Amino acid sequence: MLKQVNAVKKANIYFDGKVTSRTLIQADGSKVTLGFMLAGEYTFGTNEAELMTVLQGGMSVLLPGETAWRRIAEGEEFSVPKNSEFQVKVDKYVDYSCSYITE
Amino acid sequence: MLKQVNAVKKANIYFDGKVTSRTLIQADGSKVTLGFMLAGEYTFGTNEAELMTVLQGGMSVLLPGETAWRRIAEGEEFSVPKNSEFQVKVDKYVDYSCSYITE
Repeated sequence: MLKQVNAVKKANIYFDGKVTSRTLIQADGSKVTLGFMLAGEYTFGTNEAELMTVLQGGMSVLLPGETAWRRIAEGEEFSVPKNSEFQVKVDKYVDYSCSYITE
Repeated sequence: MLKQVNAVKKANIYFDGKVTSRTLIQADGSKVTLGFMLAGEYTFGTNEAELMTVLQGGMSVLLPGETAWRRIAEGEEFSVPKNSEFQVKVDKYVDYSCSYITE
């Protein structure tokens, strides 16, 4: 449970709705998104560093500067540097949270 | 913005992920879900009466006891009695909120 947050009503919609997320603002002003991706391959860019955690399902990720895909299972996490791109492959679906790390 | 809510991290997942929602608990204990449906036809059952509002996109709905489908566009809403079933058709996607009305 994320406690005492303000929730933006409208979803963030990407890739024709195959990827969506909800923005939550925490009491300290920091942003968390709760997102969902259906099967597919996606490339994302970051403005801030991100910490992504798989809540349900799983995904494979190709992080910037790496050549091997990593499998991220339920309960596992990975981080992505700011101003970078990463690739994601989803077989069935993945339910995830994303925290934004401002320095 | 839904203010000062507690957000359940894990998504509610239906129809292989084509329909998902996030549960938010408001300060007064009432529940709101923010949901997203991709193209498809779905039947839902209610336990409590529900008030559904379209936030983005649109849907058609066949309400219990009715024979004509209603088109629900962005910003429009409809309610469904408790312990009933209703059918939904989505062409592209619909982003919605659902409030639960306890008597």
